[in-house]
Amino acid sequence: MNGVDLIKACSAIGAGLAMIAGIGPGIGQGYAAGKGAEGVGRQPEAQGDIVRTMLLGAAVAETTGIYGLIVALILLFANPFF
Amino acid sequence: MNGVDLIKACSAIGAGLAMIAGIGPGIGQGYAAGKGAEGVGRQPEAQGDIVRTMLLGAAVAETTGIYGLIVALILLFANPFF
Amino acid sequence: MNGVDLIKACSAIGAGLAMIAGIGPGIGQGYAAGKGAEGVGRQPEAQGDIVRTMLLGAAVAETTGIYGLIVALILLFANPFF
Repeated sequence: MNGVDLIKACSAIGAGLAMIAGIGPGIGQGYAAGKGAEGVGRQPEAQGDIVRTMLLGAAVAETTGIYGLIVALILLFANPFF
Repeated sequence: MNGVDLIKACSAIGAGLAMIAGIGPGIGQGYAAGKGAEGVGRQPEAQGDIVRTMLLGAAVAETTGIYGLIVALILLFANPFF
Repeated sequence: MNGVDLIKACSAIGAGLAMIAGIGPGIGQGYAAGKGAEGVGRQPEAQGDIVRTMLLGAAVAETTGIYGLIVALILLFANPFF
């Protein structure tokens, strides 16, 4: 075993850890989906506006999950350490 | 033990860690399911719109779980480190 | 100790970690079950629609738990590392 192998091994663990960030968007977007479904049930005539607002908010909530994915992909495919 | 074996061992841990992201979509989509069921109970005539909105939002909430799965599968079957 | 033993040991940890994903569907589907029961109590005549919506949403919420199970089973029975 040499040092680069240790770096690669720990980078694999780091990539897995980074994905745990996905917990947050999953919970948050699910909450938005639930509230969106609730709103559509109450005011079906406002469905377009409700869904648009829901998706806009969900897109914002997605960002930290994307950050985690980007860091994982950097560790895997563009690792600056070796 | 050689370096590649260490990388493989840590990749197995990394793949397991990446799956923890699944906590989020599980909670979020379940919340959406609950709100959808509640909405249908209140406005059965809006069932189609409610279920469509619920499923659309749940699909968005699924994304970070899919990211975690992709990273796990990369670590398992397309590992760039060896 | 040889390398394959280390891979097997860490795969056992990885398989266990992957199952932590099950926290999410457990909470989410439980919430859906609670809201479904609440809705049926309020509108017993809508029971069929409420339960169908609840089960559809719960099936979606199950997916990330299944992903974790699949990754754990791959690590245990179809480990690509040795």
